[in-house]
Amino acid sequence: MPKASIAPDGKEYLLPTPEENEKERQILDQITAEQRAMGRKIVAVQGLGFVGCVMATVVADAVDASGKPIYYVHGHQRASARSYWKVPVINTGVPPVSSSDPEVPEIFKRCVLEKKNFRATSEDYVYTLVDVVVVDIQLDATKPAFGEAEKGYCDLTAFREGIRTLGKHIRPDCLVLVETTVPPGTCDKVVRPILEEEFIKRGIDIIANPPLVAHSYERVMPGAKYVASIRDFWRVFSGVNQKSIELCREFLSNVLNVKEFPLTQLDHTNASELSKVMENSYRATNIALTLEWAKFAEQIGVDLFKVRDAIRKRQGTHDNLLRPSLGVGGYCLTKDPVLANWAMGALFGLEGSLDVAIRSVNINDTMPLHTIELIKQVYPELRNLKVTVLGVSYLENLGDTRHSPSKTLVEFLRKDFAIVKTHDPYVEAWPELEESYVESDIDKALEGAEVVVFAVGHDQYRHLTPDHLVTKSGNKPLIVDCSNLLSDETLATYKALGCAVKGVGKGHV
Amino acid sequence: MPKASIAPDGKEYLLPTPEENEKERQILDQITAEQRAMGRKIVAVQGLGFVGCVMATVVADAVDASGKPIYYVHGHQRASARSYWKVPVINTGVPPVSSSDPEVPEIFKRCVLEKKNFRATSEDYVYTLVDVVVVDIQLDATKPAFGEAEKGYCDLTAFREGIRTLGKHIRPDCLVLVETTVPPGTCDKVVRPILEEEFIKRGIDIIANPPLVAHSYERVMPGAKYVASIRDFWRVFSGVNQKSIELCREFLSNVLNVKEFPLTQLDHTNASELSKVMENSYRATNIALTLEWAKFAEQIGVDLFKVRDAIRKRQGTHDNLLRPSLGVGGYCLTKDPVLANWAMGALFGLEGSLDVAIRSVNINDTMPLHTIELIKQVYPELRNLKVTVLGVSYLENLGDTRHSPSKTLVEFLRKDFAIVKTHDPYVEAWPELEESYVESDIDKALEGAEVVVFAVGHDQYRHLTPDHLVTKSGNKPLIVDCSNLLSDETLATYKALGCAVKGVGKGHV
Repeated sequence: MPKASIAPDGKEYLLPTPEENEKERQILDQITAEQRAMGRKIVAVQGLGFVGCVMATVVADAVDASGKPIYYVHGHQRASARSYWKVPVINTGVPPVSSSDPEVPEIFKRCVLEKKNFRATSEDYVYTLVDVVVVDIQLDATKPAFGEAEKGYCDLTAFREGIRTLGKHIRPDCLVLVETTVPPGTCDKVVRPILEEEFIKRGIDIIANPPLVAHSYERVMPGAKYVASIRDFWRVFSGVNQKSIELCREFLSNVLNVKEFPLTQLDHTNASELSKVMENSYRATNIALTLEWAKFAEQIGVDLFKVRDAIRKRQGTHDNLLRPSLGVGGYCLTKDPVLANWAMGALFGLEGSLDVAIRSVNINDTMPLHTIELIKQVYPELRNLKVTVLGVSYLENLGDTRHSPSKTLVEFLRKDFAIVKTHDPYVEAWPELEESYVESDIDKALEGAEVVVFAVGHDQYRHLTPDHLVTKSGNKPLIVDCSNLLSDETLATYKALGCAVKGVGKGHV
Repeated sequence: MPKASIAPDGKEYLLPTPEENEKERQILDQITAEQRAMGRKIVAVQGLGFVGCVMATVVADAVDASGKPIYYVHGHQRASARSYWKVPVINTGVPPVSSSDPEVPEIFKRCVLEKKNFRATSEDYVYTLVDVVVVDIQLDATKPAFGEAEKGYCDLTAFREGIRTLGKHIRPDCLVLVETTVPPGTCDKVVRPILEEEFIKRGIDIIANPPLVAHSYERVMPGAKYVASIRDFWRVFSGVNQKSIELCREFLSNVLNVKEFPLTQLDHTNASELSKVMENSYRATNIALTLEWAKFAEQIGVDLFKVRDAIRKRQGTHDNLLRPSLGVGGYCLTKDPVLANWAMGALFGLEGSLDVAIRSVNINDTMPLHTIELIKQVYPELRNLKVTVLGVSYLENLGDTRHSPSKTLVEFLRKDFAIVKTHDPYVEAWPELEESYVESDIDKALEGAEVVVFAVGHDQYRHLTPDHLVTKSGNKPLIVDCSNLLSDETLATYKALGCAVKGVGKGHV
């Protein structure tokens, strides 16, 4: 058994002892009683990850017509070595995530320290006390083979355990609102049966008291509007019965900005679960489409980004057309089609597959190899080639490295014995990659580079002058623009300085 | 040699004799001289098909600041048995196409009879007289095997002949503006070389007088805004040299509504040609994506159309999400990906293919078979099954049957010996299908039906009551809704009347 949990800043937090847990249960009882006496309803958020921790503050921040908080929120995070540190950190009023959104530290401070209606705990006992549980357990897709998303699956073990914990503790009239992106069918075929099983074990009559399960998915966007993307945006919801639908609508109407963004109710949890994974599959497919056209454009002298702008003039019918790039990263587009495809067979016993979506994931996952092909057009032999990768996050001007395509790029370059340096102004640690030191000094990162890959469109890179880059590299490096970051004028300047120039979708350079 | 050309209304027009052609050349000389004396420039439109005939009127209708016509337009149509009839018909001021757009007959009448600056001819000699040729030659893709668009190709023979005719006749300073949707590379690798070849034969110095080739594609939509979709909409253009770019910009600025819809210039004809086929491939791919999700939705009780509405709330990023249906028809989405894929190898000698786009065409082309699967879920044996197909055009409230998915539906039903009747209020003749009698009396079409397929969402079908349909059929027919035409209430009424009900993407019924 681990004894401590280490935060990203290196600080160590001892896991709670049985005695401390006993004391914590008393504290939970006491707080809850006090809060109920103030007329507040009690909410638990299960899982304080990227969505859960902010969702918890949004719930705590909700006020009634007289400006008073409607809910008290217990954030629940298991006492694991990996994540327990979040509990004591949150309880000092500090967010457990870094973000460029200034609202993030503000809302944590406000709810934890000022309103004092949000507190984190690692005690399961908390679920006995609440009216609503918002489930934000992390749920990943596993893709066991690179470029073969059709073999992808979803391991529900931890998710099932989390739901079972709820079944053992919650009152029968507690609303279980699943916010996690789940394979379609999960609420109906996984969550409800587990709750029913545990209710029966507890002697609860599930005919009179059917579990109240609802589903509503978030559309969170990391970045400067992180909090608003949870609170001030369109929401879809559904429930397994009339009571859960009503409770869910009431809850979401209290905590979200439904005045500007009215709720959309769907007829079944299958429908809202499908809606979430379909909307991300739509994006993934549209990106996959662009890669083929980018390759074609590159070979016939066409700038695909200008073509895209021309097409997107058709507002309302063609403006969702996406662009090619180094590849696709982040938590959603890389996994959601896999969740859906897996659910077809695993949860519904259906034949067939979501072939278009899955092929798109494969195209997107292997897209970084195209940038390596561009490098090889100039340097057929990668061994000992000095490559500097500018940008390792998956989005511009953000430090989020989850499923970043730069990881694939770096791994495959290293596999062929290239010597790779990476730089990112927003990334301090890159936990997903071994040997992942990320240089923060761009001049050091450029030193000796024979190839410079503009992998991600961070603004800093836009302001890097060709003169500066060439001087610092000490070479005339090959410039590869993966994200249409460099203007035609800048690329011409690089050429004038003797550099070869390549770009994803940029056939005109 | 054929002697006559028969119009759709059955009227016969004798093809011109050599003597008549000689006289026509004198008329062309005389008109052109008169029009030049009035300060007008002379334009020919090559090919009076769906785009060409209306484009010709849009050019003729263009006026300068003082309200006077800028151009005189010669519409040119070869004297073929298939199409010659258009020449005499147009010259009476009548459009050679039927349309629900009231502007179509108006603009023909205005230009031919009132302004008298548009006239059709079948004489190639006309090209010697003009300042601009707008090329609107029809150019199809051939898909030799059903569901295998990867084998598709583009036969350029007739197109090349048309361009060669121009090369033999036009003045070297005449702008050749290609408006036809062509495989990327066509202007640069087909049109220009042919013109150069013919110029050289005529002793023209092609260094001093390089052919002036430009490309600008239309985004025509059949229906109530047919004329406006050509004139009042975003345009992309490009040219093979500076002079052709300038002339093209001037011409388009004179004839189109560029004040509201400014032109977009691309760097090369390859780029604008690619832009056109990519924008239609984008649509085709997004439709293909929906079929898989529709099948999934059908099997798990989900109404995909409601899911689509929920997703499309995300305006600007997700509102281009299309819907599943009987299938994809029309002239563009069914062929443009094939043109592009074929061009890669045939015009550029490149390896590789546009796999996502081509697979999407295959999914779309075979989509009507899914509706047959829905029928088979209720009637596994199609032999002698009486099926009524409501709607044979490819779009709602239109009579356009080009590449209609109803054709595939009817053909495959008949292949399995179903007895198929078809109905369409907008379609008088269905030239693409053998044994294609289309009933115009819906009650007769319904008589004896065991299956009624709502194939196309014409308004008339929306107003058909379940009582009426069931009574007229004399059965309790299976109702199949391919286009989300019938509301949940209407479908429930059919069920209450004893009908089985199915719908593409409608798992909840």
